[in-house]
Amino acid sequence: MPPDALASLARRYEVTNGRSFKLKHYEPGDTAGLDLKDGAGDLLEQGVRRTADLQERLYAQDRWAVLLILQAMDAAGKDSTIKHVMSGVNPQGCDVHAFKAPSAEELDHDFLWRASRALPRRGHIGIFNRSYYEEVLVVRVHPELLARQQLPDRVVTTRIWKERFDDIRAFEAYLGRQGVVVRKIFLHVSPDEQRRRFLSRLREPEKHWKFALADVHERRHFADYMDAYQDAIAHTATRQAPWYVVPADRKWFTRLVVSSILVRTLEELKPAFPEIDGRKRRELRVAEAALMAEERA
Amino acid sequence: MPPDALASLARRYEVTNGRSFKLKHYEPGDTAGLDLKDGAGDLLEQGVRRTADLQERLYAQDRWAVLLILQAMDAAGKDSTIKHVMSGVNPQGCDVHAFKAPSAEELDHDFLWRASRALPRRGHIGIFNRSYYEEVLVVRVHPELLARQQLPDRVVTTRIWKERFDDIRAFEAYLGRQGVVVRKIFLHVSPDEQRRRFLSRLREPEKHWKFALADVHERRHFADYMDAYQDAIAHTATRQAPWYVVPADRKWFTRLVVSSILVRTLEELKPAFPEIDGRKRRELRVAEAALMAEERA
Repeated sequence: MPPDALASLARRYEVTNGRSFKLKHYEPGDTAGLDLKDGAGDLLEQGVRRTADLQERLYAQDRWAVLLILQAMDAAGKDSTIKHVMSGVNPQGCDVHAFKAPSAEELDHDFLWRASRALPRRGHIGIFNRSYYEEVLVVRVHPELLARQQLPDRVVTTRIWKERFDDIRAFEAYLGRQGVVVRKIFLHVSPDEQRRRFLSRLREPEKHWKFALADVHERRHFADYMDAYQDAIAHTATRQAPWYVVPADRKWFTRLVVSSILVRTLEELKPAFPEIDGRKRRELRVAEAALMAEERA
Repeated sequence: MPPDALASLARRYEVTNGRSFKLKHYEPGDTAGLDLKDGAGDLLEQGVRRTADLQERLYAQDRWAVLLILQAMDAAGKDSTIKHVMSGVNPQGCDVHAFKAPSAEELDHDFLWRASRALPRRGHIGIFNRSYYEEVLVVRVHPELLARQQLPDRVVTTRIWKERFDDIRAFEAYLGRQGVVVRKIFLHVSPDEQRRRFLSRLREPEKHWKFALADVHERRHFADYMDAYQDAIAHTATRQAPWYVVPADRKWFTRLVVSSILVRTLEELKPAFPEIDGRKRRELRVAEAALMAEERA
């Protein structure tokens, strides 16, 4: 694999303008012509080390925050991607938040409320395992969930999905202007590969706990979900907060691409250890003199 | 190094009953007779791998939470210990919370309020980088901080530290009964080693940002802090929530001991992937049949 292979992977799957976005142009089995044997493991390790180094600078600089949103169908590999791409990074600067079905308290708030509370602080990398995008995905596929949101009738109109896209775009633009760099990743798995992974979970006792019958039933809505993803990505992919449609039928490749996205995002910020000013420099001299004087005392 | 060296390290520094605790019996430069050349790096790597494996089971089991509290003087190595002991663990199941000087909102609440909000959820390992113990350490050494806490006069008496120890013991007993396993670590650095580390920070431009003149001035209270630690550990070391007085003059050794404490804590919980019951087993069979039927369709 050429040395800049990792850097170029992110670009290949980036969507910065949704106007002509078509999900069907993206192939879940794509591996960009690469092969697992081409040293994918080394390349991922290289990506993790680079991430750890950049994250240390991001933390020291304490200006930018990076928010990586992971969305996908079940068994597309969200958890294992997080594990493989982020293990090795200092957890002191990395917050992972997994969003489950909303609680009664969360349903009593606007749909961005619980996400806002989980945003990464400056200097941190935040990972959302699912996110407020569920509001235009699972809630759209299952309208009964919308009915449970206690919204006043007057605000629930036929324009609701369009309005939610507008709200999400505005929220992400706001975050960008506050120094929170948002990157959104759709792990794009095929129904066939999902089926294979479900079957393998059924056959490995150590994975039984992860399995829910409801996940299998949910497969009948696969096409509806793809329509919802198509529409969500088309309406919310922007230059400031791009989407990445990452092929997810090959786990080793998914991890490489996600690592590539993270490294590229961090590199663009050029995080550096803070420069010190004249005042600070004088402080350092006073401190050194005080410490040296102790020795003579 | 013998193969069980890691396991035995934790025991050596454990305090489960504070009644006769004397900090002066603990030596910051102690290395338990071990040498860096004895393969400390391999042993630490082994500890990190073991932690990662146990943490995965803890997460799947979703019953226990582990809270590791790190307290220390400046430059004792809290940040670097977290980095070396925890990098390699899946950040999805590990939350690190660094407590800074309390905000105005936090000061308007009881002293355990902000800590409660940062507790790890079930299945997670939480790390507190500093904690509510600052309330009986820095606040005790600097009484002017207590004055800023907006407490009604009537509750500020000469018994306040004793009462805070009682409250902390009660809080930790409660957490234990809720399945949150609390382990408290004091990284015990000598004033001489702290001075050497401050000087080396002054001489390495990449570490300048971490340096504050106030930290050097704080050295004049070193003995007061040690008295406060002595008293805090003596009053809050229990079998359910023990303290570990970890020698911190040798960074490689500090990391080994902390890793040992974490591994031992997790092993005692015997975290296991959840057993599935008859109902779940039937569910798995239904799911498998449904997935297999798809193939024939």
